[in-house]
Amino acid sequence: MNEYLEFAKDLAKEAGSIMYENFLTNPAKEWKEDRTPLTFTDTQINRLVIERISASFPDHSVLGEEESHNLGGEMTWVCDPVDGTMAFSHGLPISTFSLALTRAGKPIVGVVYDPYIKRLFWASKGEGAFLNGDQIHVSQSESLENTLIDLEAIGESGQPVIKLKPDFLPALTALGANSTRLWSVILPSVLVASGQFSATLFVHTKPEDGASIKIIVEEAGGKVTDLFGREQRYDQPTNGFLASNGKIHQQLLNLIAEYTVDK
Amino acid sequence: MNEYLEFAKDLAKEAGSIMYENFLTNPAKEWKEDRTPLTFTDTQINRLVIERISASFPDHSVLGEEESHNLGGEMTWVCDPVDGTMAFSHGLPISTFSLALTRAGKPIVGVVYDPYIKRLFWASKGEGAFLNGDQIHVSQSESLENTLIDLEAIGESGQPVIKLKPDFLPALTALGANSTRLWSVILPSVLVASGQFSATLFVHTKPEDGASIKIIVEEAGGKVTDLFGREQRYDQPTNGFLASNGKIHQQLLNLIAEYTVDK
Repeated sequence: MNEYLEFAKDLAKEAGSIMYENFLTNPAKEWKEDRTPLTFTDTQINRLVIERISASFPDHSVLGEEESHNLGGEMTWVCDPVDGTMAFSHGLPISTFSLALTRAGKPIVGVVYDPYIKRLFWASKGEGAFLNGDQIHVSQSESLENTLIDLEAIGESGQPVIKLKPDFLPALTALGANSTRLWSVILPSVLVASGQFSATLFVHTKPEDGASIKIIVEEAGGKVTDLFGREQRYDQPTNGFLASNGKIHQQLLNLIAEYTVDK
Repeated sequence: MNEYLEFAKDLAKEAGSIMYENFLTNPAKEWKEDRTPLTFTDTQINRLVIERISASFPDHSVLGEEESHNLGGEMTWVCDPVDGTMAFSHGLPISTFSLALTRAGKPIVGVVYDPYIKRLFWASKGEGAFLNGDQIHVSQSESLENTLIDLEAIGESGQPVIKLKPDFLPALTALGANSTRLWSVILPSVLVASGQFSATLFVHTKPEDGASIKIIVEEAGGKVTDLFGREQRYDQPTNGFLASNGKIHQQLLNLIAEYTVDK
């Protein structure tokens, strides 16, 4: 396991350097069909990841946001080369590199790198979660009062897993929670692991967004489920995810259920 | 004017160094009555600004978010020591330092510093807007399609100038716009000046958030008005602001009017 973790940490830093350098040049973007942007950096880093993994672990699969390789194995690396491409391509330094190794769909190693502040978050199964070498823990908030929650869930285009009523946001505010919409779910999610954010909500099916979060947040003492409170695989399309400090998890699941638009 | 601008640029870098250093230590926060956080960094930088201005320009006034000095003069420096304290105190590197010099309420010099990426934005009346020495310009988007707009307007606590109906957000999405909620309005607003964001919307009365934006965005070719499309002073409470590339300004004002909750 340690070999996988060290490999992932090195790769994260290499990918992060590319992301940081390209950020400074204000990269050109094109718009994908789901109305999110794509930059050269996404494809460049995705390709690097496939190259490095196929050289070091030729039997493993790679599921990448832009490109995959040798899919279908028990051991699958799940990668978001630039999480937060919208932020990245509009001048906000809140995008990250994310990589997880899953065994039969369960993340056993996860790394996330923020190249702007040089924050490397990682976890491996049973070993705790860390930020640049210091062990991290989720917050202890038992209520929503004065919490900060990232919602990648409101006013969505594309095909979200669930659609929330516009009133969800005022309901959350009335309970004392503050919410962000960053177009970048992985950074606030690792900040759940380090106790700064209290929860994040993601309504799309892409497993690349949740794979590293599942292990990093849970090894920090929190909880990550699909939007209905269930466990799920992270090497195939997901039912979105809710990541939290654990203590406010059920309250948020109840709110989500209450404010979901009936299909 | 050049003397004021150089003074403001130097002070911005000094303040930004403090902000950056303190960010790395994950600063403690307390919660203000309006349910936004306050850190030691806000008061520390605000104090530095008063000290430097009263030493260099003893006749001038200082209007600071946390503390003011010698108020009521024709020449008033308007300062937000840490714009985006919520972001700053929760691990997001998107807070900025902002300082403008107003004459009879009109900004004549403005500087904004992002200490994480070391981006210094500035403008002085009639001289254009700049980012680290390069002249910047707003985007040329004539429609909302594929624009990015920051809304510091939805699910607000406190006493906002206007309250928008929750349906404002889906209406904006239906027109092809994407929106962020960063708890930090000044960074996306200077990114309007540099053409990356297309607009920002701020519903509170604090002039510290709009003073530097008024001059930087307009010197970059954009437009900044209150939420009803009017000019206003920036050395006293404002009617919020809408900053845009100019071309989509009226369309956004119309949408705001349509979705404002009647009082």
